[in-house]
Amino acid sequence: MRPSGRTPDALREIRLTREFTRYAEGSVLVEFGHTRVLCNATVETGVPRWLRGKNQGWVTAEYGMLPRATHSRSGREAARGKQGGRTLEIQRLIGRSLRAAVDLKKLGEFTITVDCDVLQADGGTRTASITGGCVALMEAIRHMQRKRQIKSDPFKQLISSVSVGIYKGTPVLDLDYDEDSRADTDLNVVMAEDGGLIEVQGTAEQAAFSRLELNAMLDLAEKGGRELFTHQREALGIPQ
Amino acid sequence: MRPSGRTPDALREIRLTREFTRYAEGSVLVEFGHTRVLCNATVETGVPRWLRGKNQGWVTAEYGMLPRATHSRSGREAARGKQGGRTLEIQRLIGRSLRAAVDLKKLGEFTITVDCDVLQADGGTRTASITGGCVALMEAIRHMQRKRQIKSDPFKQLISSVSVGIYKGTPVLDLDYDEDSRADTDLNVVMAEDGGLIEVQGTAEQAAFSRLELNAMLDLAEKGGRELFTHQREALGIPQ
Amino acid sequence: MRPSGRTPDALREIRLTREFTRYAEGSVLVEFGHTRVLCNATVETGVPRWLRGKNQGWVTAEYGMLPRATHSRSGREAARGKQGGRTLEIQRLIGRSLRAAVDLKKLGEFTITVDCDVLQADGGTRTASITGGCVALMEAIRHMQRKRQIKSDPFKQLISSVSVGIYKGTPVLDLDYDEDSRADTDLNVVMAEDGGLIEVQGTAEQAAFSRLELNAMLDLAEKGGRELFTHQREALGIPQ
Amino acid sequence: MRPSGRTPDALREIRLTREFTRYAEGSVLVEFGHTRVLCNATVETGVPRWLRGKNQGWVTAEYGMLPRATHSRSGREAARGKQGGRTLEIQRLIGRSLRAAVDLKKLGEFTITVDCDVLQADGGTRTASITGGCVALMEAIRHMQRKRQIKSDPFKQLISSVSVGIYKGTPVLDLDYDEDSRADTDLNVVMAEDGGLIEVQGTAEQAAFSRLELNAMLDLAEKGGRELFTHQREALGIPQ
Amino acid sequence: MRPSGRTPDALREIRLTREFTRYAEGSVLVEFGHTRVLCNATVETGVPRWLRGKNQGWVTAEYGMLPRATHSRSGREAARGKQGGRTLEIQRLIGRSLRAAVDLKKLGEFTITVDCDVLQADGGTRTASITGGCVALMEAIRHMQRKRQIKSDPFKQLISSVSVGIYKGTPVLDLDYDEDSRADTDLNVVMAEDGGLIEVQGTAEQAAFSRLELNAMLDLAEKGGRELFTHQREALGIPQ
Amino acid sequence: MRPSGRTPDALREIRLTREFTRYAEGSVLVEFGHTRVLCNATVETGVPRWLRGKNQGWVTAEYGMLPRATHSRSGREAARGKQGGRTLEIQRLIGRSLRAAVDLKKLGEFTITVDCDVLQADGGTRTASITGGCVALMEAIRHMQRKRQIKSDPFKQLISSVSVGIYKGTPVLDLDYDEDSRADTDLNVVMAEDGGLIEVQGTAEQAAFSRLELNAMLDLAEKGGRELFTHQREALGIPQ
Repeated sequence: MRPSGRTPDALREIRLTREFTRYAEGSVLVEFGHTRVLCNATVETGVPRWLRGKNQGWVTAEYGMLPRATHSRSGREAARGKQGGRTLEIQRLIGRSLRAAVDLKKLGEFTITVDCDVLQADGGTRTASITGGCVALMEAIRHMQRKRQIKSDPFKQLISSVSVGIYKGTPVLDLDYDEDSRADTDLNVVMAEDGGLIEVQGTAEQAAFSRLELNAMLDLAEKGGRELFTHQREALGIPQ
Repeated sequence: MRPSGRTPDALREIRLTREFTRYAEGSVLVEFGHTRVLCNATVETGVPRWLRGKNQGWVTAEYGMLPRATHSRSGREAARGKQGGRTLEIQRLIGRSLRAAVDLKKLGEFTITVDCDVLQADGGTRTASITGGCVALMEAIRHMQRKRQIKSDPFKQLISSVSVGIYKGTPVLDLDYDEDSRADTDLNVVMAEDGGLIEVQGTAEQAAFSRLELNAMLDLAEKGGRELFTHQREALGIPQ
Repeated sequence: MRPSGRTPDALREIRLTREFTRYAEGSVLVEFGHTRVLCNATVETGVPRWLRGKNQGWVTAEYGMLPRATHSRSGREAARGKQGGRTLEIQRLIGRSLRAAVDLKKLGEFTITVDCDVLQADGGTRTASITGGCVALMEAIRHMQRKRQIKSDPFKQLISSVSVGIYKGTPVLDLDYDEDSRADTDLNVVMAEDGGLIEVQGTAEQAAFSRLELNAMLDLAEKGGRELFTHQREALGIPQ
Repeated sequence: MRPSGRTPDALREIRLTREFTRYAEGSVLVEFGHTRVLCNATVETGVPRWLRGKNQGWVTAEYGMLPRATHSRSGREAARGKQGGRTLEIQRLIGRSLRAAVDLKKLGEFTITVDCDVLQADGGTRTASITGGCVALMEAIRHMQRKRQIKSDPFKQLISSVSVGIYKGTPVLDLDYDEDSRADTDLNVVMAEDGGLIEVQGTAEQAAFSRLELNAMLDLAEKGGRELFTHQREALGIPQ
Repeated sequence: MRPSGRTPDALREIRLTREFTRYAEGSVLVEFGHTRVLCNATVETGVPRWLRGKNQGWVTAEYGMLPRATHSRSGREAARGKQGGRTLEIQRLIGRSLRAAVDLKKLGEFTITVDCDVLQADGGTRTASITGGCVALMEAIRHMQRKRQIKSDPFKQLISSVSVGIYKGTPVLDLDYDEDSRADTDLNVVMAEDGGLIEVQGTAEQAAFSRLELNAMLDLAEKGGRELFTHQREALGIPQ
Repeated sequence: MRPSGRTPDALREIRLTREFTRYAEGSVLVEFGHTRVLCNATVETGVPRWLRGKNQGWVTAEYGMLPRATHSRSGREAARGKQGGRTLEIQRLIGRSLRAAVDLKKLGEFTITVDCDVLQADGGTRTASITGGCVALMEAIRHMQRKRQIKSDPFKQLISSVSVGIYKGTPVLDLDYDEDSRADTDLNVVMAEDGGLIEVQGTAEQAAFSRLELNAMLDLAEKGGRELFTHQREALGIPQ
């Protein structure tokens, strides 16, 4: 029934490729099916002005899409002279989510910026960015530890994200573009390993959704999240 | 227990003042306690370029905050040369929510823009904007009907919005700034009169939240929503 | 003869409402008839970079108009990405005028910013902004005195402003939009209580004006100014 | 008494050099002493969008200052990414003033843009721009007549402009930078040949000015204006 | 002697991977050693405004660098609100070069935009962009031919580009970042298959270069160009 | 054969007028025939942030064109809100070229900015800017020496620049607009007095050029350069 032939509770093929580029302290290519996002984590000394002297670090994210990541070309934001509302909304979500993975006090006065650049977009770029960005962030923290920039371990927990929706009346997991553009409802869920919810963003594009449907979608998201954590631990070499 | 002395399930005092300004087709001052937002709905002929010839109308929103709506002055976005990420995120949310109130096909080739300008901010500016903006939108549609710009009735349903959160371990309704800045979790809910959910946006600022907590918050939001619909109907002179 | 039925030398109804918002150190809603401007004065420690170390304070103003303050909606400057020429011209005028009310040396190294945001525009928004802004400024200085941020009194004199023009051949006081858009000449006058002129800005939109007409307009402005000072003193509780 | 040794009612040396550049339809280098402004008038077919179909033309102006026109270098506005408030204020004044020289109905659907670029600034750049810009505008209209783009004569009258001020208690004509930066009051006057006033912009930078002082300044401006009209007529070869 | 151990006339390892992304009409990942650029060619109907009605097509390019393509992170141009001078200079060069590969008359009223986004930068990003961009352009034209959007063949010739420089007194081919940042002279050469020069851009960063040195560098560039054409033909399946 | 009647190896009439404006530390009007550029060099204490503490100075350039420097009016970059790609490309070239004239170590912690503003453009504005800018730069250094801001002499060598091209099959020197817009190839050459090449930028606008043609153009450029150095030395009063 799904355009891709997947069962309602099936993720797309997930791949997390570490060290995709050479220079970033953490570099991960994350793929959710045809959606491909390059997540590069950069460690810099110091914190933004408004955090100075508070004896803590900062984690933030930026998001971009290559002009031809999509079916038709969209204008380059650098050329248009500003980041669009969708871009800002997504990078704020990624940043908030990744901060939940880290104890900023233990990070010390460093800033980690996770750049999520979409090379190819087939739906779910924000959830892939969070899932892959968390691995890149972990890599960057390990890099800091190897360099002895920090002594304690600021990493609190893995964070993953997946979309769920109501497609032709059925709750489905990890929507691709074909489904996303026709779904009645779209819910992006960010989870912690212990099952806690970090972010829930649901939008009824066509018709309002009920509490029952919300719960069905959250059940699916939990299942997807468990699988994503397995992929993340595998990529990071953490015992399951 | 709440700084304001309210019980956990109590809204702040809600006021909806119609015809607050003279020129807009719909003009409503909405107050959620000390939060005051001026919602002006403007009717213009025509639709955005990408909708032309599709035989439908458009509803959109813009959001702004006066520089001294808050405890300390924030820079004027017009002077800084761009709208911030928070502003864009909020106005996209308001626009999506208000479109759920209207049958765009029946609206015909008109655009209704709802400007939500915050005169005073004490938490919940986006939920007040949606709740008041829906009344301004309804007013504007009535104006179009009086002017015979449209024959059919494009208004589908009332939409309201309220925030809920976990404050010191307890789910509370309609957070003011004091609570919002210290809450563990903050959830903005947009509802339809029939109980359907239009938008759910939850963020765990301090600690992840559980499915149980989510459900408790949604229960509170439903109660708050029912009261807000009563206020809206009263303001609009619709029999309860 | 005037569209409003006023005599040539009559002001519109003037209202100055203090404490219109809660957070600003000075907050005044000024109304010249249907023209309504919210003037919020903010006190901040420090001065602009180019004044540092000069042992003086600074007073400045910003001006904005809500998109639907006018008969038809005008684009939001924050969304367009810059303040227009008219806006900049007006806020420079307001700032210069208000500085004439204050002894910057006695103010000490503080900056007072007066935000003038037009909620509803029916002509004369800049003169209302100056007249109301001066009251908000005075309030902010009183606030500083109560907080013991300053010891001496930097307030020099009240400043008010009114427009005059030649409408259908007759000099008239305090033009509303109907008159303003059809007047041959428009003159904005900023005055001190002792009768001194702070600013005079006259524009012949249709036909040049003579020295005789200029003097007739200035006579009217003096009369209007005297009445405005009475309103300001009343609002501030200063004995007449 | 004046730093330049001039008598209070003396203009600086005025020069108007036509055909200063080759390509503009009207090109005038205007000099008020050391102040030098290049005024280029461009004729283009068509009018701005909001004037289309109204069967009239348009005259507008743009103003700029070369970065090192002044004693110390000021940043290039093109590099900073926007025109400052002072620039916009001045070019709006120049445009309004020049429109008073032309019958826009008789101009037909053409736009004349007068670019006023300051090569060297020693006070009075806006008054020099208006005075020189009017000559460039007249040249451009003659060019249109030679090219038979228009049949009737849209030129109504010469417009000139000069500054006056109160310097050390004495009214003086045509302030240079030394005087302008220390004057109590500065008044820019735009006049028509018949003695009518087009614009009057007076600012009390240090102390308010009286009606008496205003009249003394306007007397001086009239004298200066008469001399400027003689210079303009001479430059244009119009019999005195 | 070269940091990489290469002989002076050796290119880095060159790879051209077609169909790197799914949606672009031409998509090539080009690698010059560690420098990796994704070149996506997009075909769109129509031409820029200034070319309309001239019965020809257009080829243009845009260039960007991911923030962490380099050793340290550089700010995102979309966030800074404009493309820098280096970016604009490079994308203008790429566009001019690629236009030399195509007969714009035969292309018909289509625009091909080649986006060159640097995933990893180790020197020579502009020469890699031109070399890879030409292959993507050829792919896009083949796509148009398969879709029967054009009948004739607008492809004129292959274009390739390589840098040469004087490094520690010796002319070397295809500088990597280590060499480039310490070279006395840097020359970027764009060539056609028949040996003709399309662009030559030489800069003496440290010391002027002689005609003799220029000729030695051009000899190297010719050798490098011949090898690049072989790589391009191989990637495109064109018999050598 | 050339539109101007010049022989292929003839420069246009070259003029270098010193002290064209009063305030700049170095001010030169350079004319290559009808091309006229005002080059003003400004000396400021300090260096850009990224050079601080490196015990050296900086030389940079900015370039602009007055809107009506050309046959038809082009939009003012300050009004459009950004400098175009061509402008940035040219000012980067001028800056790099002028830095080759100076020993930045000997300059000390000063920045010299050379503003090149085109008053009239008839081809070759960038080469005129470099040639005149070098004289203004030399003047500014002399000014610093007179003021005893520096003791040693940071001036290394004169730099000049000229364009060459292939026009109707013949190599020609110093192209004017008529030739430039129709030339097959255009080469801008920046030279040092000792014959060394600082920059070579060749573009085949219509047809690729051969090594033979490149050498013929460079021969012409050398001849032109020798004549330009003579003009520069004459302007600066340096014995030939």
